[in-house]
Amino acid sequence: MRIDWAPPADGNHAAGHALALMVNDERIEAANRASFAAYLAAQPVLEGIAPAREAVSGMDGRMILHAGPPIAWASMCGPMQGAIIGAILFEGWADDPEAARRLAASGDVGLAPCHHHGAVGPMAGVISPSMPVWIIRETVSGRLSFSNLNEGLGKVLRFGANGAEVIGRLRWMASTLRHVLDATLGEAGGIELKPLIAQALHMGDEVHNRNAAATSLLLRRLLPPMLRSAASRDDVTEAVAFIAGNDHFFLNLSMAACKAMLDAARDVPGSSMVTVMARNGVEFGIQLAGTGNRWFTAPAPVVDGLFFPGYSTADAAPDLGDSAITETAGLGGFAMAAAPAIVNFVGGTPDDAVANTAAMGHITLGRNTAFTLPAMNFVGTPAGIDARRVADTRLLPVINTGIAHRKAGIGQIGAGITHAPLDCFTQAVTALAASVPDG
Amino acid sequence: MRIDWAPPADGNHAAGHALALMVNDERIEAANRASFAAYLAAQPVLEGIAPAREAVSGMDGRMILHAGPPIAWASMCGPMQGAIIGAILFEGWADDPEAARRLAASGDVGLAPCHHHGAVGPMAGVISPSMPVWIIRETVSGRLSFSNLNEGLGKVLRFGANGAEVIGRLRWMASTLRHVLDATLGEAGGIELKPLIAQALHMGDEVHNRNAAATSLLLRRLLPPMLRSAASRDDVTEAVAFIAGNDHFFLNLSMAACKAMLDAARDVPGSSMVTVMARNGVEFGIQLAGTGNRWFTAPAPVVDGLFFPGYSTADAAPDLGDSAITETAGLGGFAMAAAPAIVNFVGGTPDDAVANTAAMGHITLGRNTAFTLPAMNFVGTPAGIDARRVADTRLLPVINTGIAHRKAGIGQIGAGITHAPLDCFTQAVTALAASVPDG
Repeated sequence: MRIDWAPPADGNHAAGHALALMVNDERIEAANRASFAAYLAAQPVLEGIAPAREAVSGMDGRMILHAGPPIAWASMCGPMQGAIIGAILFEGWADDPEAARRLAASGDVGLAPCHHHGAVGPMAGVISPSMPVWIIRETVSGRLSFSNLNEGLGKVLRFGANGAEVIGRLRWMASTLRHVLDATLGEAGGIELKPLIAQALHMGDEVHNRNAAATSLLLRRLLPPMLRSAASRDDVTEAVAFIAGNDHFFLNLSMAACKAMLDAARDVPGSSMVTVMARNGVEFGIQLAGTGNRWFTAPAPVVDGLFFPGYSTADAAPDLGDSAITETAGLGGFAMAAAPAIVNFVGGTPDDAVANTAAMGHITLGRNTAFTLPAMNFVGTPAGIDARRVADTRLLPVINTGIAHRKAGIGQIGAGITHAPLDCFTQAVTALAASVPDG
Repeated sequence: MRIDWAPPADGNHAAGHALALMVNDERIEAANRASFAAYLAAQPVLEGIAPAREAVSGMDGRMILHAGPPIAWASMCGPMQGAIIGAILFEGWADDPEAARRLAASGDVGLAPCHHHGAVGPMAGVISPSMPVWIIRETVSGRLSFSNLNEGLGKVLRFGANGAEVIGRLRWMASTLRHVLDATLGEAGGIELKPLIAQALHMGDEVHNRNAAATSLLLRRLLPPMLRSAASRDDVTEAVAFIAGNDHFFLNLSMAACKAMLDAARDVPGSSMVTVMARNGVEFGIQLAGTGNRWFTAPAPVVDGLFFPGYSTADAAPDLGDSAITETAGLGGFAMAAAPAIVNFVGGTPDDAVANTAAMGHITLGRNTAFTLPAMNFVGTPAGIDARRVADTRLLPVINTGIAHRKAGIGQIGAGITHAPLDCFTQAVTALAASVPDG
């Protein structure tokens, strides 16, 4: 990759000044080492499944979580509004889509980012109280992370669809599938997710847009306890057919595991390590370990990718979903070298895949040797995005992502590669510099 | 790879003369095109499972099949003798290992290569009448191929172990596992094996020494019909635990699928395409499409590889097993570029893996575009070994393989890379030349 010289932070003087102050500042370096070490040490374990209302704090009322940084109902993109309408119908808070829309617009349903509740969700990222969530315990800190369950492809809530088929599937997931998985996990005990992800990286997944191996490995791991469990034969048969039929089933667990690893790196004053990258379909937001829950946002980019027949960029919603948590954790686009076959899905060549991973080495704090890349001679994946280096080099974090139609309910129309907007990082380093007393 | 000039066929004048006659002989070229086209067109489908006595012709008496070219009892290596003793005990033809040994030595049990009965088996490759075999139908020709079922690692018959644990497992496989798989395949209908192999190649397997993805994909494919089938919950639970616990479970299906593809290429007068490479632990043997069932043999090489702690080359049996059928079909070592992670198991670096695949392009008739290699920009795997080119270039077919202890029953002691001996190919081209009238 050729990098032409350009002023740091793209000529933003305040950010350039902040950067100059922070380069080689030993307080920042030490803070970053602490954040990165905590990220490396984190051990996410899949521990259970439960309705969000029981597992996630603050979800016992009329509350709906969504992807990305905070956003008001009226500003939301089509797929996110469609998903929220579907969640309201699923919860029985309204009887038809129009009533659901009015309820959402009335403000009588709480709307908050998943990330404010320790959770993540792909695309619209909608989680309502009765939906089952995966419960991941990070065993070093004991902290919990959550994600919703993957519905499969086609007409699904996360792309804004909310018809009878979608709601019916969500009901089945909240009853049969949840019961089978609950019995299975009770029988299995916890399942460590990092070894499973590591194995999947050796099997062509980057665990963001390609989860074929991880899903197969997970199913293989779940099956013996599932069959030993008290779940009925009919329910097991339905659950297995559902999981086996969806290559993306592992995605939501990958995301929750990444959330757990990155939450471990949080709340280290002075740390410029990125702990969140997330999109709500209108804005792209990031958080740093040194600046707590503060969001730094910029307009969400439109994704350059491969479109399904009949669709083009004109049909695409801007970048959407919490799934960029995988790139934030050194996976997804950062681990593309592990997944050459993914270029059939997101575009480019296998050489591009290796080049993307190599480039990310310039903006990260180190390598995660728990996640090795065979095609790069088993080097660890580049991880721990340093917001300083992004602003300094203008080398933007690469993200593999699905593309949603801008209208609710049409669903996925492609997949491709996008980049986090520079402006998030220049804002973040400026704010971080302000938080560190002059040296 | 650097190839120094050397006389063709390593200075063997008869072979060199034969080669000179055959180079650019349009009859040979046309025969090879026919063989290769039939190999490419073959469609192996997993159709069923049955005791060898019912499925394999000539297996209704006291008959035991073994790996590699023909060999007498007294000449067999330790692991093969151990496995045959185990098979006799399993069949109940003798009550203890010494009686079984005497029976085997007496000649009252028929011994024949698997390949003479359309079958293949890894390592010792022992198949006796009551053992279940996979039944693969090649749908273009209707021809059947067979393999035994993979027992897992540790103390297993194929490495010559024959204690109570081994025989007990074989009995369970012949009853419970067979019944579950029979019910499953009845429910599933046939399962096409080429798409499954193609997918596994995109997931880091070369389907010889690495079958982690293929086993997971197979299990995922079998589960829904297994759960719908009449098999009992307890039996399904045991069968799934057994399959899920063995990364190599798919190997035997991979081998039988390769056998089916290569049998399709057989019996084309004048064809120099290799249809069999197989080892009995003493000799390495090959067959050509143009010379029918005739074997061309040479001493089996000792494998250069990575040994498990406490073992070395001195402990190793020479190269053993029918599993080189995968390389003969363009998989295994020929598809190593698909499986960079395998170098942890067989030695070398990921670059070596790509180099091995690239080198095999020089001795093969074409590319199999059903099996693409992401790391080489989705080129097809090199396939259809041309015995002429091997003899001409001295570039030997590369084989990934397990290494057995030379004594019966100790089991696998390592894995590595070996090469087919040149002498097999010089003999084969000499015989082929003799079979083709002067042009």
